Amino acid sequence: MKLVRPTLLLDEVKCKKNIRHITEKARKAHVKLRPHFKTHQSHVVGAWFREVGINSCTVSSIKMAAYFARDGWDDITVAFPLNYLEVEEINRLAKVCKLNLCIVSVDALKKLTEKLTQSIHCQIEIDTGYHRTGVDATNYPAIDEIVSFISTHPLLTFKGFLSHAGHSYAARSSSEILKIHMDSVALMKTIGERYRNRFPKLELSVGDTPTCSVATDFGGIDEVRPGNLVFYDLMQRVIGACTSEQIAIAMACPVVAIYPERNEVIVHGGGVHFSKDFLKTEDGTICFGEVVKLTSQGWEQPARPVYVKSLSQEHGILAVPAPEIQKIKIGDVLGILPVHACLTADAMGEYVTLDGKVIEAMTGSA
Amino acid sequence: MKLVRPTLLLDEVKCKKNIRHITEKARKAHVKLRPHFKTHQSHVVGAWFREVGINSCTVSSIKMAAYFARDGWDDITVAFPLNYLEVEEINRLAKVCKLNLCIVSVDALKKLTEKLTQSIHCQIEIDTGYHRTGVDATNYPAIDEIVSFISTHPLLTFKGFLSHAGHSYAARSSSEILKIHMDSVALMKTIGERYRNRFPKLELSVGDTPTCSVATDFGGIDEVRPGNLVFYDLMQRVIGACTSEQIAIAMACPVVAIYPERNEVIVHGGGVHFSKDFLKTEDGTICFGEVVKLTSQGWEQPARPVYVKSLSQEHGILAVPAPEIQKIKIGDVLGILPVHACLTADAMGEYVTLDGKVIEAMTGSA
Repeated sequence: MKLVRPTLLLDEVKCKKNIRHITEKARKAHVKLRPHFKTHQSHVVGAWFREVGINSCTVSSIKMAAYFARDGWDDITVAFPLNYLEVEEINRLAKVCKLNLCIVSVDALKKLTEKLTQSIHCQIEIDTGYHRTGVDATNYPAIDEIVSFISTHPLLTFKGFLSHAGHSYAARSSSEILKIHMDSVALMKTIGERYRNRFPKLELSVGDTPTCSVATDFGGIDEVRPGNLVFYDLMQRVIGACTSEQIAIAMACPVVAIYPERNEVIVHGGGVHFSKDFLKTEDGTICFGEVVKLTSQGWEQPARPVYVKSLSQEHGILAVPAPEIQKIKIGDVLGILPVHACLTADAMGEYVTLDGKVIEAMTGSA
Repeated sequence: MKLVRPTLLLDEVKCKKNIRHITEKARKAHVKLRPHFKTHQSHVVGAWFREVGINSCTVSSIKMAAYFARDGWDDITVAFPLNYLEVEEINRLAKVCKLNLCIVSVDALKKLTEKLTQSIHCQIEIDTGYHRTGVDATNYPAIDEIVSFISTHPLLTFKGFLSHAGHSYAARSSSEILKIHMDSVALMKTIGERYRNRFPKLELSVGDTPTCSVATDFGGIDEVRPGNLVFYDLMQRVIGACTSEQIAIAMACPVVAIYPERNEVIVHGGGVHFSKDFLKTEDGTICFGEVVKLTSQGWEQPARPVYVKSLSQEHGILAVPAPEIQKIKIGDVLGILPVHACLTADAMGEYVTLDGKVIEAMTGSA
């Protein structure tokens, strides 16, 4: 395969292994897997989940729900707080699929019902410690108010509770991740108990890649919604959720300039390709990506890590010490593991597999 | 106009005023304006430059050059170091337009000529202090070597020297910007003098938005290539290159959750919409955007600034103190000025004008 410009490589074997791994883990744990498709945003990768028996998914916007509904997904959870302004698109979508919306306030739901014409399923988002969105896990009056409103409205069905323990991203070891998982699950189970008499079918849904990667016990939980683990990335490796070998995407970037006097190599590959999330390495270095050696079978870790130290719109600036820098030539194509796979995949809008197949995804965020 | 989801608003009046302003300034200064189109990446906005007499442009990739060539632009400078791996696309493009490539090393140019079939114009990029790419301004042997190679090859025409004083982005006042401009221009003129006897038609091209916004004296310079000033953004305001009133784009973001107990408002508008460049405000606060009030005529600055404190993939988290937070309701649509217009425009892939026209742009970075 000839790589001549920034290209997001997808190692299909690694990706399918990641998919199989989580699917089997969920089956063994007797928990339903509803993978989050915001990471790959692609019909093709979605179909790989379908091949192993997955028939429902999670998305992060109504637009993304519409994209996957067009490919036949008919049970879709939008794990983003209900935006009632999108009621027209919600009505259109709920005609063609089972649409599960995420509720964080009764006000938004009341507004929605003013123009709602189709049946929808409501999950109340519970804040189990991340403090981004959701009703606080102990705020029973607020939860009661939402549950009551759902119960009285003919177009609304109460589906249960949903949480996203995103504070797991601050973890730096398996034990820290597990602690967050167990605390979060305990809070969800307490809420579940409180409402299960009235709603015997209610479901508890949790999910983020760190906890789903590390935990094996999902007792009392009905559903998990991890997304990133389809690809993984450097952030997940730092958190302790994956190894380098599990990372299934790498950007191919041509070398366009070399400055040995300041130990810098410039590649074509910048903020428009990677987006701009970064990590601080142990010694305080800022890292926007890590260089790997592209091979005919994919990519290999170098003996010593080489980092992307900064990104401008189209330029990537690598910090390359001697003697490594002497081995690099203009026109070489380097692989770079992304810090945040979801944003990189979103920025690129397509993938190329190791055998050269182009895999399309949603493009443009408007 | 009904705004229901994250939408990148473009104030056509402000944008055209920015375009007129730089066009008139360039005319008065007797310097050619070759605007950088990487900021807007849109045929429509490009056409607004054409309407005021601009007939050549700058781009940051061969892919972007091809996009604008398809709209009839026939004199295009690619202000990114030559990537000779793209020779096939370069040959195709150079058939339909005057293609000016940016050379930072003789090696890349030699490699290019092995498969080059069309005439191209070469500009040597000079590093005047930014230290990203380019030949050091005093490295005459390297410059001589490139000039000699160009002179001997029948398909190559030497067009002159190009620089990008990107270190102006570290400035925080007009006087700092002007100092960088004068130093950079002085280095370029010295190089120009050295080669003008042999190449009487050589051109000196400089350009970045801060220096082009603040400087009025471009004596001895032939061409300027600013890009960002078509829209401007918070970064440029902090640098001292524009005022808030000149910023011509704002993201419309629906409010989906409000947490008065922690002074936070959550909007739909995240990293996939804004990208993730941020600023540190004077008191050390991180800022991913600044809230404005949307009106029927566009937007207005609030009395007290309200910042976007963090972004996840689809969520924007605003820090909103009391009493402002009491005035915000779920379903309100807030305007947010972006930190870095170029990356935000690239992430969105389209604009909507204040009267509801959709303006398309290039989408996907693959």
